[in-house]
Amino acid sequence: MRIAEPTVERLVQYHRLLEQLRGGGRKVVSSQEIGEILSLKASQVRKDLSYFGEIGKRGVGYSVESLHRHIDGILAAPERWSIGLAGVGKLGEALLGYQAFRKEKFHFSALFDTDKKKIGTTIRGIHCYSADDITEVIREKNISILMVSVPASGAPRVVEDALRAGTLKGILNFAPVSLTVPEEVLLVSVDISIELEKLFFYIKHKDD
Amino acid sequence: MRIAEPTVERLVQYHRLLEQLRGGGRKVVSSQEIGEILSLKASQVRKDLSYFGEIGKRGVGYSVESLHRHIDGILAAPERWSIGLAGVGKLGEALLGYQAFRKEKFHFSALFDTDKKKIGTTIRGIHCYSADDITEVIREKNISILMVSVPASGAPRVVEDALRAGTLKGILNFAPVSLTVPEEVLLVSVDISIELEKLFFYIKHKDD
Repeated sequence: MRIAEPTVERLVQYHRLLEQLRGGGRKVVSSQEIGEILSLKASQVRKDLSYFGEIGKRGVGYSVESLHRHIDGILAAPERWSIGLAGVGKLGEALLGYQAFRKEKFHFSALFDTDKKKIGTTIRGIHCYSADDITEVIREKNISILMVSVPASGAPRVVEDALRAGTLKGILNFAPVSLTVPEEVLLVSVDISIELEKLFFYIKHKDD
Repeated sequence: MRIAEPTVERLVQYHRLLEQLRGGGRKVVSSQEIGEILSLKASQVRKDLSYFGEIGKRGVGYSVESLHRHIDGILAAPERWSIGLAGVGKLGEALLGYQAFRKEKFHFSALFDTDKKKIGTTIRGIHCYSADDITEVIREKNISILMVSVPASGAPRVVEDALRAGTLKGILNFAPVSLTVPEEVLLVSVDISIELEKLFFYIKHKDD
């Protein structure tokens, strides 16, 4: 199944909205309403959802419960993947404290840092190891996802050492640097300065 | 000038790479080399750069200096925009300390928080105001960009108050919540949990 990136992003947004609606006791929702809340065309919403085999009833809408379950199944991790976090600075701590990460499916099993004051301690309930031991710890704990929140200069080395464990399936990189990973490992990069540059660019050129 | 989002992202990447090359004393660079470092096809690189009027010489490549200056002109902010930051928690502090933001063009002029211990203090050289005063402070300081790193529950209110100043041109939102902004204000959202969900999704479906 090949799904374009913007569709995945919308799926995650539908999923979050349906969780909110479900929490509020809603039973049905229309494509118009979903579209209005998420600033999408109703036709786009219908197209996305029908692509995944879920068709709403005309004039009735979608069952919140069954649509939520359906998208949940598409997005859910097939097992409880172990996540490692390299770099427990301000950003690393922000990531650990991030509410959306505290769900069952996001399970941090090890932290890594080079700061002697942090190594050997427990931060938000998770043990912090020396970055020097990252290969062994990732292998032992069978960690499949690594989040990288170390400075740009340290990121390539940390990632190289982590990949050597042979258990990583994906990397979520926050360091503003290009990383090289093997074909079979997925890399998603979140570059905050690129987002700010984009915003500047759009503001500057929006009236052209 | 309408430029597709992925192109802007690549422009920012070219810009960063050219800065690195220039710092290292390089004079020329080929589309092949740019492509290899950034994992892009050389033909894509040539297409992007020719679109902006910069043509490399066959067999010689691009002048690092002139290509850098050229892209710099496209990306540069037309004035030194003032930036405000709402929410000086872990993520807010990470943003303030983020090396790429310490350049001349990213100028923070005010911080906002609801924590009495922070209000009235100076954090990394920038004054922290009460979030209650955000409308007035943004107007007085003529702030055009607001970064939002408050929890999801507080974000809509902060943004509404900030917009009331009438000076905002753009918002960079890190709160995992949908925000409503007027047509003329640009909104870029960075949702970390969506990026992680995307990574999970791709790993799960990559062999389909």
